[in-house]
Amino acid sequence: MIIVLKLNPTPEDVRTVEDHVRDLGYAPHTLNGEVRTVIACIGDETHHADLHALLNLPMVSEVIPIQKKFKLISREVHPDPMPVSVGDLRISGDSFHVIAGPCAVESMEQTLSTARFVKQSGATLLRGGAYKPRTSPYDFQGLGRDGLKILADVKAETGLPVVTELVSERDAEAVAEVADVIQIGARNALNYALLTEAAQTGRPVLLKRGLSSTLQEWLLAAEYIAKQGNPNIILCERGIRTYETATRNTLDLSAVAAVKRETGLPVFVDPSHAAGRLDLVLPLARAAVAVGADGLLVEVHPDPEHALSDQAQQMTFDVFREFVDGIKPYVQLTGRDHAF
Amino acid sequence: MIIVLKLNPTPEDVRTVEDHVRDLGYAPHTLNGEVRTVIACIGDETHHADLHALLNLPMVSEVIPIQKKFKLISREVHPDPMPVSVGDLRISGDSFHVIAGPCAVESMEQTLSTARFVKQSGATLLRGGAYKPRTSPYDFQGLGRDGLKILADVKAETGLPVVTELVSERDAEAVAEVADVIQIGARNALNYALLTEAAQTGRPVLLKRGLSSTLQEWLLAAEYIAKQGNPNIILCERGIRTYETATRNTLDLSAVAAVKRETGLPVFVDPSHAAGRLDLVLPLARAAVAVGADGLLVEVHPDPEHALSDQAQQMTFDVFREFVDGIKPYVQLTGRDHAF
Amino acid sequence: MIIVLKLNPTPEDVRTVEDHVRDLGYAPHTLNGEVRTVIACIGDETHHADLHALLNLPMVSEVIPIQKKFKLISREVHPDPMPVSVGDLRISGDSFHVIAGPCAVESMEQTLSTARFVKQSGATLLRGGAYKPRTSPYDFQGLGRDGLKILADVKAETGLPVVTELVSERDAEAVAEVADVIQIGARNALNYALLTEAAQTGRPVLLKRGLSSTLQEWLLAAEYIAKQGNPNIILCERGIRTYETATRNTLDLSAVAAVKRETGLPVFVDPSHAAGRLDLVLPLARAAVAVGADGLLVEVHPDPEHALSDQAQQMTFDVFREFVDGIKPYVQLTGRDHAF
Amino acid sequence: MIIVLKLNPTPEDVRTVEDHVRDLGYAPHTLNGEVRTVIACIGDETHHADLHALLNLPMVSEVIPIQKKFKLISREVHPDPMPVSVGDLRISGDSFHVIAGPCAVESMEQTLSTARFVKQSGATLLRGGAYKPRTSPYDFQGLGRDGLKILADVKAETGLPVVTELVSERDAEAVAEVADVIQIGARNALNYALLTEAAQTGRPVLLKRGLSSTLQEWLLAAEYIAKQGNPNIILCERGIRTYETATRNTLDLSAVAAVKRETGLPVFVDPSHAAGRLDLVLPLARAAVAVGADGLLVEVHPDPEHALSDQAQQMTFDVFREFVDGIKPYVQLTGRDHAF
Repeated sequence: MIIVLKLNPTPEDVRTVEDHVRDLGYAPHTLNGEVRTVIACIGDETHHADLHALLNLPMVSEVIPIQKKFKLISREVHPDPMPVSVGDLRISGDSFHVIAGPCAVESMEQTLSTARFVKQSGATLLRGGAYKPRTSPYDFQGLGRDGLKILADVKAETGLPVVTELVSERDAEAVAEVADVIQIGARNALNYALLTEAAQTGRPVLLKRGLSSTLQEWLLAAEYIAKQGNPNIILCERGIRTYETATRNTLDLSAVAAVKRETGLPVFVDPSHAAGRLDLVLPLARAAVAVGADGLLVEVHPDPEHALSDQAQQMTFDVFREFVDGIKPYVQLTGRDHAF
Repeated sequence: MIIVLKLNPTPEDVRTVEDHVRDLGYAPHTLNGEVRTVIACIGDETHHADLHALLNLPMVSEVIPIQKKFKLISREVHPDPMPVSVGDLRISGDSFHVIAGPCAVESMEQTLSTARFVKQSGATLLRGGAYKPRTSPYDFQGLGRDGLKILADVKAETGLPVVTELVSERDAEAVAEVADVIQIGARNALNYALLTEAAQTGRPVLLKRGLSSTLQEWLLAAEYIAKQGNPNIILCERGIRTYETATRNTLDLSAVAAVKRETGLPVFVDPSHAAGRLDLVLPLARAAVAVGADGLLVEVHPDPEHALSDQAQQMTFDVFREFVDGIKPYVQLTGRDHAF
Repeated sequence: MIIVLKLNPTPEDVRTVEDHVRDLGYAPHTLNGEVRTVIACIGDETHHADLHALLNLPMVSEVIPIQKKFKLISREVHPDPMPVSVGDLRISGDSFHVIAGPCAVESMEQTLSTARFVKQSGATLLRGGAYKPRTSPYDFQGLGRDGLKILADVKAETGLPVVTELVSERDAEAVAEVADVIQIGARNALNYALLTEAAQTGRPVLLKRGLSSTLQEWLLAAEYIAKQGNPNIILCERGIRTYETATRNTLDLSAVAAVKRETGLPVFVDPSHAAGRLDLVLPLARAAVAVGADGLLVEVHPDPEHALSDQAQQMTFDVFREFVDGIKPYVQLTGRDHAF
Repeated sequence: MIIVLKLNPTPEDVRTVEDHVRDLGYAPHTLNGEVRTVIACIGDETHHADLHALLNLPMVSEVIPIQKKFKLISREVHPDPMPVSVGDLRISGDSFHVIAGPCAVESMEQTLSTARFVKQSGATLLRGGAYKPRTSPYDFQGLGRDGLKILADVKAETGLPVVTELVSERDAEAVAEVADVIQIGARNALNYALLTEAAQTGRPVLLKRGLSSTLQEWLLAAEYIAKQGNPNIILCERGIRTYETATRNTLDLSAVAAVKRETGLPVFVDPSHAAGRLDLVLPLARAAVAVGADGLLVEVHPDPEHALSDQAQQMTFDVFREFVDGIKPYVQLTGRDHAF
């Protein structure tokens, strides 16, 4: 950590800070700049205390942490890609995957027909929520166990591995029985109890970025999962909260490029939830491919207008076909394998 | 809901939208403005479907929802204050409460000495975390059950009711045994499974606003609790995430005034977490009193510099005494009862 | 405009609001919903008064404007593309343009060598600031008139049309003499006096989105220019201000797709300023092409490390060559003409 | 500046960075931490180059600037208050001032009646816009020169000093002739040409915080003014842009407390523009007093409903009287002089 002192500290001031620094387990190293005096504090920041308390000393102006707190998933520590295996699929930089399916599982018929269609169109994983976290308690919350049963049946029928969301620690076991990948949604992205529970099932985890998570928080949330001995993590950018209201969230594609520099984990993009409007899903998906994403998560429904949730952003079968056709040349350009 | 059509719709366009609207359970009512055609849709929005799907029709420009989705806690439905009873305390607009204590329970000695001091200085509830949600998995996560035990002992000793955070559904019973008020933190503010679990314990719930929750989301989170038959909710503003980095969060005092217009529930303010720096806690607390808050939640520690978390924002005993003296005349001005 | 009343209004309440509405030039049309009473107000919102004042009536809950305020540049009014001609160049959906050059004009040598290199690499316009708006008054503010002279000479030498920023109304004439396109920067994006002055020169204007402008504000700023009889406007997305600090701004590529639905004006992207770091410029540029941008604005400098501004984001000649090679296949995929 | 290297740099890596650092005018000082290697760079950051370019070296992880760039207005350099004199008024920490008046000057009658009323109610300065920066080019833009004439007449009649906004460099002289304080609005807060022009008139400047300005940017904007030899600056917080839509902007009262630690300049608060709704103006004004503001800027109009701008947030005379009565006891508590 670096401590910046206020202008013109006395030797006494400097000594006071140095003593505090030593007391907290660091070796202080004082540098007298032309304008500022700075005390560099040598020590392992993951083990020694946080020095921010020193901000309360009158002569301290700033405390700047240096060390990054994630390491199990860090590219600095693990420079190689960290692929995730889902059954026979290998999710890594060599291939491009589309996860598609309805926002919510509503019925066998709806889910099965969607699964068949998306599979035949080139999707390699099926998504569908049995548990839906909804902003209003009066909105449809998912079919729960019945939804899981439908997903299991559809998986048996189509062979598509299933991605489904976990919203309660109490459902972890039941969800893990059916899910090939457990999804953690944006609202639970900093719910560390749930992250830990999901990790402990041993299933790969698709971790959405929180509504307003920084890259640092997102990576540390992934580190919570890895710390349970489960490094099978797919990160998923889904837009962040900003002042702009033309889209439901602001898709942060810089984050995809930036986060790939920090970690070897695969990074997906969910353009449906980011935009919240169908007309932007295809252009944003193309952009996601071009920025370097490893896959996409999109919503497809046989009859979106009568869907029980997210009616404005689910694609019909026809639109999904056009969507896959629309991203295909961009995926080809990246030289990645794909199933469409 | 109101549907705004694009410029110059044909009669056919209008009929198409009207048919869809009826199909979804609403009665359409078309108005031809000087510039825009608008279709007002009559129906109960908590029961009929969301009309946003109609955005995908080529002639639709905007869909605007009208009805608010919270009602159990709404001032429109319940114009009177909704006071919360905690043991003998009545938290309402007539009194002003200070909840004080350490960020985390670290030891019996630390917690008991703090409790005694804050009680004698006029705090009416004790705060202290046995479970701490931390951004990094390598940071101190709280003493857990041992921390709860300490809180129970300190409560027995001092008589101060206890406010403590719940971070996992699995701990709800254990926490509810000790807690007089269960706190839901900002990171879990949209964790509906946890909100439901907390509500079902029957304990009053102190619900912090999420890191980037809108007022609407915050009130709907409270509605989740109320829907379980538990209307004993204290809302707590703790700053929102913005681009400004001079403070850890941006304390949104407008929200306190605005939310009190929407609901009769008591609203507290946590100036410690909002600012993340000690020098702003007193001025922000005074402002919170002046804007109409019903109470404050602050952090006090016998030795903040050696605290295991939040070192930069916990007050020493001396500073807390000054703090209480500093807010006292402002509280008196509001004519509310207080214990300091 | 739509006025939503509070729950259970009396007939008297409704009459009061209707009277106010008429008084302000609208025809009220009252609809009694199942839950809410809504008064639709028929009238041209660009001519009649804003009804927001009615929010101060006790029975009014919300006032919702319907009509968009931009029309000269609106796709609803002008469904066709609105191409911009710059000398022989036609900037429209049929071609893709790269505007490249140094952040600031520093010398004849630096500007000329850059211009020659970027032209030969396929850039069709030269950028370079003679006037630099800098956050600190102690940073390099540009060469001013001397910089304009250099730009004029380099244009004469290379034939590349020049894009340069206007920061003061007093320089409009001098800048317009040299500039083929006048740039309005993000900090001045809502400086309506400057927009008007730039428009009146008759030169095409490249209008960056403001630091935190909504799409609506951005388009209305363009409308200010168009209202002066100058419809030659290139919009340029350059990232918005958010809480995320991993990048200098958050590039909002959804905005590119969304704004193209609202207007036929060309939309460019500036990935250099958005990211503020060189390693993200190429992936973001590819994404910008894929999302549908009509061109890119990037910074190139013969020796970025010794540049007088924006050292971290200017490309060397070699990097620019790789950059052009990197975007080329993506541009080809869109079927647009290009010069590289 | 501090340069943080990536993990495990070679001695060669370190030498490379050190050479670059020296080349840019700094003395490097390398520290080998337990985990990270850090190179502290000694030198005056206002004169030497920005080291951010080094981010492009493969072994560099982060570049952290240390030195603050404002000094003329900095409390570190000038620990004492920097009061502003406006005629006989002295704006400083000893007194509390209310600036009141209509959003826009609409007529002699409207302005004079308002001025008389607010003076008699205790306001010490009159506000009123002759030039109005409006988001839409179709909205009322102010009376211009006629508005200035009215302000001059009203000042002659009432003796109230006048605060009015400057929106164009070309009007600086005319505005300065009438204005006792020149206001720079939020949209022009980073319009450095206008700041410079305003400063050069020699008039005190009321500088609003930009729509999304950081404290650092706001203070540097003030430094632009001070650098022209004009230290008579009143800072004015008016809310920042966030995701929250319940209020027009989010009033950042932490900023008031925080900025007063950085500078001795007076800091005012504009609760009307922040909230954009009348019902929050009084509670926010009380909070502003309590947090330590030196004054308030509010809008008063004889007939807000028929005002030509900002109808939803201007107070009637009666409401203004209640407003002054409402803040009075809070101002008294601070021990400041006041005229109401």
